[in-house]
Amino acid sequence: MKALTYHAAKDIRFETIPDAKVTAPHAALVRVKACGICGSDLHIYQGHGFSDDVGFCVGHEAVGEIVEVGAHVESLKVGDRVMISASVGCGLCAPCRAGDVVRCDRNAGGCYGLSHALPGCQAEAVMVPHADHNAALIPEGLTYDQALMLTDNLPTAYLGAKNADIRPGGTVAVVGLGPIGLMAVEIAYALGASRVYAADLVPERRAMAEKLGAIALDPGDEKALLKEHTRGALAGSVIEAVGADATLKLALQLAGKQATVSTIGVNQTKQFPFPMALAFNKGLTFRTSLCSVMVHWPDLVPMVRSGRLKPEAMISHRMPLADGAHAYAMFNDRRDGALKMVLEC
Amino acid sequence: MKALTYHAAKDIRFETIPDAKVTAPHAALVRVKACGICGSDLHIYQGHGFSDDVGFCVGHEAVGEIVEVGAHVESLKVGDRVMISASVGCGLCAPCRAGDVVRCDRNAGGCYGLSHALPGCQAEAVMVPHADHNAALIPEGLTYDQALMLTDNLPTAYLGAKNADIRPGGTVAVVGLGPIGLMAVEIAYALGASRVYAADLVPERRAMAEKLGAIALDPGDEKALLKEHTRGALAGSVIEAVGADATLKLALQLAGKQATVSTIGVNQTKQFPFPMALAFNKGLTFRTSLCSVMVHWPDLVPMVRSGRLKPEAMISHRMPLADGAHAYAMFNDRRDGALKMVLEC
Amino acid sequence: MKALTYHAAKDIRFETIPDAKVTAPHAALVRVKACGICGSDLHIYQGHGFSDDVGFCVGHEAVGEIVEVGAHVESLKVGDRVMISASVGCGLCAPCRAGDVVRCDRNAGGCYGLSHALPGCQAEAVMVPHADHNAALIPEGLTYDQALMLTDNLPTAYLGAKNADIRPGGTVAVVGLGPIGLMAVEIAYALGASRVYAADLVPERRAMAEKLGAIALDPGDEKALLKEHTRGALAGSVIEAVGADATLKLALQLAGKQATVSTIGVNQTKQFPFPMALAFNKGLTFRTSLCSVMVHWPDLVPMVRSGRLKPEAMISHRMPLADGAHAYAMFNDRRDGALKMVLEC
Amino acid sequence: MKALTYHAAKDIRFETIPDAKVTAPHAALVRVKACGICGSDLHIYQGHGFSDDVGFCVGHEAVGEIVEVGAHVESLKVGDRVMISASVGCGLCAPCRAGDVVRCDRNAGGCYGLSHALPGCQAEAVMVPHADHNAALIPEGLTYDQALMLTDNLPTAYLGAKNADIRPGGTVAVVGLGPIGLMAVEIAYALGASRVYAADLVPERRAMAEKLGAIALDPGDEKALLKEHTRGALAGSVIEAVGADATLKLALQLAGKQATVSTIGVNQTKQFPFPMALAFNKGLTFRTSLCSVMVHWPDLVPMVRSGRLKPEAMISHRMPLADGAHAYAMFNDRRDGALKMVLEC
Repeated sequence: MKALTYHAAKDIRFETIPDAKVTAPHAALVRVKACGICGSDLHIYQGHGFSDDVGFCVGHEAVGEIVEVGAHVESLKVGDRVMISASVGCGLCAPCRAGDVVRCDRNAGGCYGLSHALPGCQAEAVMVPHADHNAALIPEGLTYDQALMLTDNLPTAYLGAKNADIRPGGTVAVVGLGPIGLMAVEIAYALGASRVYAADLVPERRAMAEKLGAIALDPGDEKALLKEHTRGALAGSVIEAVGADATLKLALQLAGKQATVSTIGVNQTKQFPFPMALAFNKGLTFRTSLCSVMVHWPDLVPMVRSGRLKPEAMISHRMPLADGAHAYAMFNDRRDGALKMVLEC
Repeated sequence: MKALTYHAAKDIRFETIPDAKVTAPHAALVRVKACGICGSDLHIYQGHGFSDDVGFCVGHEAVGEIVEVGAHVESLKVGDRVMISASVGCGLCAPCRAGDVVRCDRNAGGCYGLSHALPGCQAEAVMVPHADHNAALIPEGLTYDQALMLTDNLPTAYLGAKNADIRPGGTVAVVGLGPIGLMAVEIAYALGASRVYAADLVPERRAMAEKLGAIALDPGDEKALLKEHTRGALAGSVIEAVGADATLKLALQLAGKQATVSTIGVNQTKQFPFPMALAFNKGLTFRTSLCSVMVHWPDLVPMVRSGRLKPEAMISHRMPLADGAHAYAMFNDRRDGALKMVLEC
Repeated sequence: MKALTYHAAKDIRFETIPDAKVTAPHAALVRVKACGICGSDLHIYQGHGFSDDVGFCVGHEAVGEIVEVGAHVESLKVGDRVMISASVGCGLCAPCRAGDVVRCDRNAGGCYGLSHALPGCQAEAVMVPHADHNAALIPEGLTYDQALMLTDNLPTAYLGAKNADIRPGGTVAVVGLGPIGLMAVEIAYALGASRVYAADLVPERRAMAEKLGAIALDPGDEKALLKEHTRGALAGSVIEAVGADATLKLALQLAGKQATVSTIGVNQTKQFPFPMALAFNKGLTFRTSLCSVMVHWPDLVPMVRSGRLKPEAMISHRMPLADGAHAYAMFNDRRDGALKMVLEC
Repeated sequence: MKALTYHAAKDIRFETIPDAKVTAPHAALVRVKACGICGSDLHIYQGHGFSDDVGFCVGHEAVGEIVEVGAHVESLKVGDRVMISASVGCGLCAPCRAGDVVRCDRNAGGCYGLSHALPGCQAEAVMVPHADHNAALIPEGLTYDQALMLTDNLPTAYLGAKNADIRPGGTVAVVGLGPIGLMAVEIAYALGASRVYAADLVPERRAMAEKLGAIALDPGDEKALLKEHTRGALAGSVIEAVGADATLKLALQLAGKQATVSTIGVNQTKQFPFPMALAFNKGLTFRTSLCSVMVHWPDLVPMVRSGRLKPEAMISHRMPLADGAHAYAMFNDRRDGALKMVLEC
């Protein structure tokens, strides 16, 4: 089958690899209809991936149709339209039984497309292990686009926002306005924030945040930022959606007394110079976000269905899987307003 | 001074009573600018009040201007525009120090206008005990109308909604669409609900709920209600904003598995026939709401200021204090669309 | 096989019924080693059961050994020593995936031994549906007795205690000192209570509570109770572990301002005369407890293993399954100190 | 009056300073009966204090007797035995009204004995501002020793433990076994932990932790520690009670998946090399603790009174205020088992 594979930094190839197949009785085979490129895929693209493997199939966001199920699969059948959770659990251990898939006793929060261990889904088809638990029917009333956003990005943004302890009437700051940061703006309002500040170096992204009701902050404009500070605008909840040292530093500065700073997304920094004295003086809480995707679906599906959240609005580009290498390059360079890239099969 | 006083069922009089004055060093005297008639005032109006006193000044919702302060008052001064909390605490005991005024060790959740003990504020002036704690400057950017709604009704609706354990994406049902029920609809959405059902016998009130985004339910139309039930529309959170047996019964029926039913407002029923088997089978939580008004101001003030909540939209009528008896009668009979009655001095 | 069956009020028989077997690929067959009689079994014994069936096998608390597994079972194998959750879920729907088995979309919190629908486990063998989810290996270091208490009674007592919002340093009252009430005393201390009152009409049960550190209250001794009241001893958390009108009434009286009253166990009362005015004046929360057994195991297993909780101390009698009818009668009449009855195969 | 004053690193002097007096109508004058030396006082002692002042009176933990009250003080009178909260608020602003003194709008979490701004209490007398809010009667049944521990150390340990999200049955690790770390061990058990690991370089302190039921860990014995790790003993809650880079690093290593690491006490580090990748992979929460002392009294007083917590057992030495310089040196050098030093007047 055709798939996107990683070979070296900036070398993603569209090529033929062995067909995905059902390798265990609990697995299912899904013909991919659409898949997304995640911000964390760029770590791999830039050569800072999570293994030393090469030639493996990438990608962990996909929706599609079941074409085969293993003998043990109970809740899904051939022909079902499904969304696949980016976080993979066994569904049987105590943490999985409580919805805490990232603490799975057996595979400890596995994910597709990080190495040869579990092939990715930027391909014509993907094998879903423990399919009863790691995939679900696309809920009635949801489009493929909406379902695709539910496979990773939206639950991640939601967990990041919840981890920021947003209180009704609260002031929130979001640092970094990629798809997850922008959705975090929307979620912050849905959770009761009265005012959301949104910071990014890119003016177009700030403009998008303003459309969502946010007050834009230019991190480069120190005076404006300082003026906000002096007005007492420090936030009770800060969501950092980049993972770079500079954005983390800004997030900690924007946090007010007893605030919570929530950082979303993969962070591979070994030693971040954490301003401990500042954190202590403010009484801060600092949280990372490891997302058990499916546990958030019961909250998010009705929010998407009712239109309270519009994650599909993040999709900026749509192209065939065959153009995947081009899509990666565009997204990596933030070219032509690249925000959320969707590849279709 | 002139004031509204209670004499017997349906006998509220506008008459002259002794001037309110500062009777303790911690008290302040407030010239009332506007005061509201609360749903719980109707208990008194209907002759089912909270004491056997007659001739006392009624009312517990007021905003106005400080005209005198006792020697110990530290945070307020003559000329300040203030909102007065309907719930009164000493501000010194451990519960008050933690914001839990209704558990005050000294006066156990006092309130204005229930008897001669603490004269009401439907008057030209009112004495506020422990004024540093029981009144606050009207926050910058808020109108008198908005501030008046913050003295009791909005915090009560907010506590009622919070007590219903609304979860993001959740389905909420509100039973009873007076000012508090309607504000509960608005608050439910602000706290993340994806769908709010709103039930009331009065079509005009259901229409107002629909304008706030709710799905109207006619409690009289059993078939439609049942259809909603069969669609699986039972709510995870139910807010009952009347206090009558029929509305409580409906609220418990609308509650789904593991739901919370929150009842707002004064309830004087000695023996409500609680359907224990139904509650057990559903695994319900049932909560009453005794509101420490001021502890909710930090959440609510920014929500009102930013326009997320518009409590002032509840005000249906505005008339001079001298017409108070008329206002009570209109409100009691739900005449001419009476929703929130404001009396001005 | 031999089993206990229900025929009429006070007519439980030890007789031969068709062998239990694996009827679905997700099921397992467990040879019962020991089973318990639950307080809720007495509803059936007294003729107030949950269906009109007769001749069905009773019981929902059991531990034993796997003797056969269906083809889909992944986590258990023949020879495994298992504890069986009294609450049964499909393990596949969204509520089950989040650990909320009692909200299971497919069988809505099924239970063994209530009718012919799902035969009970007071038998030589029992079929466990969706065995991967509804049974678990007995954790290393736990005895059969301890595991048996984990199948229903201890998780129920734990949920009941958690539902009472016990705060560290808090005052707790437990009304009704059967096995669940006594364990609730122990759990209340384990959750940080500084003082636990324990009320029961039976002096021996009060004595057991005192051994667990509680302060005994005789509900019949009104003066003593009143004296406690006047000392301000009203509780912030009340656990009612009987379900009768009199005990519920006492529980609501013992509750202090802003307290939570949690009622445990099956309650079939259609109309309990709920003192709404009292509840409102106190600002009470009232909670029923529908227990998803297995979701509490991660908390409870280490508490039992470390000896913080000693549920096995509740076992008062141990006899062969063949003597089941006798055991039911003893337990029903609270004869000879009957507290927790265990039947062995 | 006589007092301890700071002059330079390791130069604490017992000398005469101007008498403390009531300088505002809301203040009270307390004759100090006993005062404690806190771990954070050692920052000052070592010359790394919080201001450039010299000659100021030090100390922020004291109990004593009221000898004079300002005209506005309502809840205290001459002769009252009081405990003084180390954290100081105005009691009037919104955060103070909600018990969140460290967010006080007016003085932002002031503290005694850090500079000339608010003189310390290691003196014969101390002025308490806003005395109604910043001091309280010593509760009936508590000794001066117990009350002294309630002025800072015990609430700080309690907040630190609560901030670690200890769950019933959970595994907890405490790093650093000074008085606060040791009390955190005791509190962890009181909050339901089933197993508490306790790490410190000093064998005597580990022995004390073992007496409290903890499992001692020698941070120097890497193999033993590693063995614990491989046994899966990583903690769900880690309390770091030192504030040094090495102990913070150890705390983060001992944390398991989705764990919370809570750091207690003053930390002045500008740039701690935070292992962000490790934190992300584990999904950690990291919390600092800024303690509003008095808000914890309602929980802690009954826990101390009932003997569940025995903070007074931390007191290792007791000497006259005149020997304060000696006490500081002993405590700083951890000489002669110095744990909690109490100075008496």
